[in-house]
Amino acid sequence: MLTLADICRAVDGQLRGNNDATISGIAPLNSASSTDISFLSGARYVEHLRNTRAGAVLLKSEFAEQCPVSCIQVADPYLAYAKVTALFNDAPTPVPGIHPSAVIGQNVRMGDKVSIAANSVIGDNVTIGDRTAIGACCAIGDGSSLGRDCRLKAQVTVYHKVHIGDRVELHSGCVIGSDGFGYAPASGGWQKIYQLGSVRIGNDVSIGASTAIDRGAITDTQIGDGVIIDNQVHIAHNVVIGNNTAIAGCVGIAGSAKIGANCTMGGGVGVAGHLVIGDNVHLTGMTLVSKSVSKPGTYSSGTTMSDNTSWRKNAVRFLHLDRLFRRVAELEKKVAERAE
Amino acid sequence: MLTLADICRAVDGQLRGNNDATISGIAPLNSASSTDISFLSGARYVEHLRNTRAGAVLLKSEFAEQCPVSCIQVADPYLAYAKVTALFNDAPTPVPGIHPSAVIGQNVRMGDKVSIAANSVIGDNVTIGDRTAIGACCAIGDGSSLGRDCRLKAQVTVYHKVHIGDRVELHSGCVIGSDGFGYAPASGGWQKIYQLGSVRIGNDVSIGASTAIDRGAITDTQIGDGVIIDNQVHIAHNVVIGNNTAIAGCVGIAGSAKIGANCTMGGGVGVAGHLVIGDNVHLTGMTLVSKSVSKPGTYSSGTTMSDNTSWRKNAVRFLHLDRLFRRVAELEKKVAERAE
Amino acid sequence: MLTLADICRAVDGQLRGNNDATISGIAPLNSASSTDISFLSGARYVEHLRNTRAGAVLLKSEFAEQCPVSCIQVADPYLAYAKVTALFNDAPTPVPGIHPSAVIGQNVRMGDKVSIAANSVIGDNVTIGDRTAIGACCAIGDGSSLGRDCRLKAQVTVYHKVHIGDRVELHSGCVIGSDGFGYAPASGGWQKIYQLGSVRIGNDVSIGASTAIDRGAITDTQIGDGVIIDNQVHIAHNVVIGNNTAIAGCVGIAGSAKIGANCTMGGGVGVAGHLVIGDNVHLTGMTLVSKSVSKPGTYSSGTTMSDNTSWRKNAVRFLHLDRLFRRVAELEKKVAERAE
Repeated sequence: MLTLADICRAVDGQLRGNNDATISGIAPLNSASSTDISFLSGARYVEHLRNTRAGAVLLKSEFAEQCPVSCIQVADPYLAYAKVTALFNDAPTPVPGIHPSAVIGQNVRMGDKVSIAANSVIGDNVTIGDRTAIGACCAIGDGSSLGRDCRLKAQVTVYHKVHIGDRVELHSGCVIGSDGFGYAPASGGWQKIYQLGSVRIGNDVSIGASTAIDRGAITDTQIGDGVIIDNQVHIAHNVVIGNNTAIAGCVGIAGSAKIGANCTMGGGVGVAGHLVIGDNVHLTGMTLVSKSVSKPGTYSSGTTMSDNTSWRKNAVRFLHLDRLFRRVAELEKKVAERAE
Repeated sequence: MLTLADICRAVDGQLRGNNDATISGIAPLNSASSTDISFLSGARYVEHLRNTRAGAVLLKSEFAEQCPVSCIQVADPYLAYAKVTALFNDAPTPVPGIHPSAVIGQNVRMGDKVSIAANSVIGDNVTIGDRTAIGACCAIGDGSSLGRDCRLKAQVTVYHKVHIGDRVELHSGCVIGSDGFGYAPASGGWQKIYQLGSVRIGNDVSIGASTAIDRGAITDTQIGDGVIIDNQVHIAHNVVIGNNTAIAGCVGIAGSAKIGANCTMGGGVGVAGHLVIGDNVHLTGMTLVSKSVSKPGTYSSGTTMSDNTSWRKNAVRFLHLDRLFRRVAELEKKVAERAE
Repeated sequence: MLTLADICRAVDGQLRGNNDATISGIAPLNSASSTDISFLSGARYVEHLRNTRAGAVLLKSEFAEQCPVSCIQVADPYLAYAKVTALFNDAPTPVPGIHPSAVIGQNVRMGDKVSIAANSVIGDNVTIGDRTAIGACCAIGDGSSLGRDCRLKAQVTVYHKVHIGDRVELHSGCVIGSDGFGYAPASGGWQKIYQLGSVRIGNDVSIGASTAIDRGAITDTQIGDGVIIDNQVHIAHNVVIGNNTAIAGCVGIAGSAKIGANCTMGGGVGVAGHLVIGDNVHLTGMTLVSKSVSKPGTYSSGTTMSDNTSWRKNAVRFLHLDRLFRRVAELEKKVAERAE
């Protein structure tokens, strides 16, 4: 339970209404009750605002007049909402200390208030920073280091000699430092290329469930500061990702690709190996990137959906598209000749 | 070892042949031996039927005359085959009881005959229904509840406050309740939106290996009754999936999408965020759904495969397709003018 | 620390330069220092060769004259590089023995020098070959067998009755033997088809992080010798993969597909169910394979990327492509008629 005054302070806003009203949760405008706070992120939902029964609404000052209940005026209501979620976060807080069932290697250096949950396994020569919490059933390889205030959820795997910065969040099932997919063709099969590099993850990084980031072949795979990565993402060896880039679910980035800062990738994007993508490049969902991109902007590939009957007719035509262009050029020539 | 009579009873069929013949397994028509039962799912395989050496065949009565061996006549041979697989299921049966290496939190309520395998970790205030079995190395978060007769295979992760119904099957590596990918743009980076909702999974749900289902931002992510989900699937926060929908491998469903009942999604389908897909919508493999679909039917996107040389020629033409339409319109105009 | 003579012997090459020079690592031509060895894989990088400060370079004899430092002449410099990585591999070596926290079932047969790391769980009747090492927090199901010299990294899951050959590498989060996605439509929902087959993995196979391979419905899913599989791959039930085929990240192969030997699949490829793909077929990234392919060669689908504005214009036209072909045919007819 928080008062509106508490919340207003947290978001650095301006309150119109009852300072002492108590708020117990967050809800969308159209389903919020009098003990919920809600937010108006854009003009599109102003009708919901007019009819809301929320206890209060975070909004831009220009909408305050249309708000039938208390409101907190802020410059960026969506950002303010994000800050308010932290006030109502009810995820369990890790308890400092090492669970007796955890297995701790030799020469492990731990900071203050480290938490290691049940059945986790910490290798030799691992360094763990202050207040970092490792969930149940995690495995941290020899010689790796975790910074301060990291949160590893249950069942996270970190291989050996991986370096992870401060305030990094790793979700369950994610794997950091697995071998890159490196093989040389040899007579009668594939010769493994041992992966001698590692993974370096910056500060304030979040990595989603079941995402895997491979270690580098010779040099390190690098994830910049502030990078956010969703679930089921595949990041191959030697990839470098610039600061604050956001990568949605099911993306695959092939080996040695270099991605700039402040990029966004929609779900299911694929990036081919050895490409260079500059800063501020945005890729829509399921785009295949098969050449480098230096110019900031939004890029896409694929076709849009249609009913299967239409799609079949059009898709089969695609197989003759080059021929069609030639036919049209031929027609143009003929028509032009006759005009003469 | 079962007799044909036993099997006939289980599938509610009509037996032609030897009641006491013993059957020890299931095999395809063309490789079955005299102790195997097989099935004819459609007229396509009737040649295999005529030559089969199976001990017996599950089939529709219309094919009985062409069957050279014993047969069990049923309305739906494929469904009957499915029922027979249960009779021959040889997967290990979980033993009720808690393995001494499992770590059990405080205030855990367990029903009858619960099984918890080695090295699993159960959080505080967890509820586990009768006969539910939790495999090795699972981690269940604080305050979550599992219904009756659930089967969690090894290495399943369930976060805190997740609600799971009865007869739910969770395969290894799956993650239920990880944080949704919610961030607000802030000066100099991303502000995390704490995910205050949870995940609600209905009854008779099956979830595949390495699939992850994120918890909701404010409200809950919801998986309806009878939903079946394959491996490597990504279901983002706030997604709602209707009853009996089937989702094949590698599908990604972005945040707040609402999927109807009795839908099917082929492998690798991508659904963009905030879309609404109605009941009985079927999506073929690797379709990108970027707009809502209300009408039942089958939908597709993409192009069909060809040899790489042809593909390159056609794909480069796609980049000029709009221009081609304009050129054709121009030609049509010219040709029409001259016809006047 | 190795001498050039040591390295030369390992790659069966011919040394030009100082036998006793010591090498402590591997680096690219343009960043190598005098204690690194580097390699020239093709004429493309010959400029880097001329300016390199490496201690030595692996190269073809034809480039020896242009090398300013010591060199080892070999027939295949990339393969030689792969062999040298093994000499510098610094991944922790598993220590033979069973960690006291591991839980070992009944009737487990182990070869010599087996290593089982902390908090792993081995089921009943499991067979583990000589020198095989199982990482932390792994779970091996009842009745499975692992050959000799296998390496299971942390958090690997192997279900029951799975058969794995010699020298197989399984990366963290991978799941072998999960149930295939088999259901028969039934009144009011889906009837599970119990998966009675298993998975058979040959020798010298490598399987990446978070990859899942389902067990067969009746017969076994089969992975041939020398197959290499990257991260986040989904291999469904009854799939058969021929020897030495290489599968990149995020590939999905649907049920009962049969893939030949010596194939390569780029990242994100999707293969529909029940298809047959012959030997030596190569699929470029994100190709959807929806029909069988018997002829060796390279195949592709999809469209190439463009800026979003252009893409939108072209993609909307794709929806009318069949109509355009008809319009062009009509024009051709009209133009031809008038030419008469």
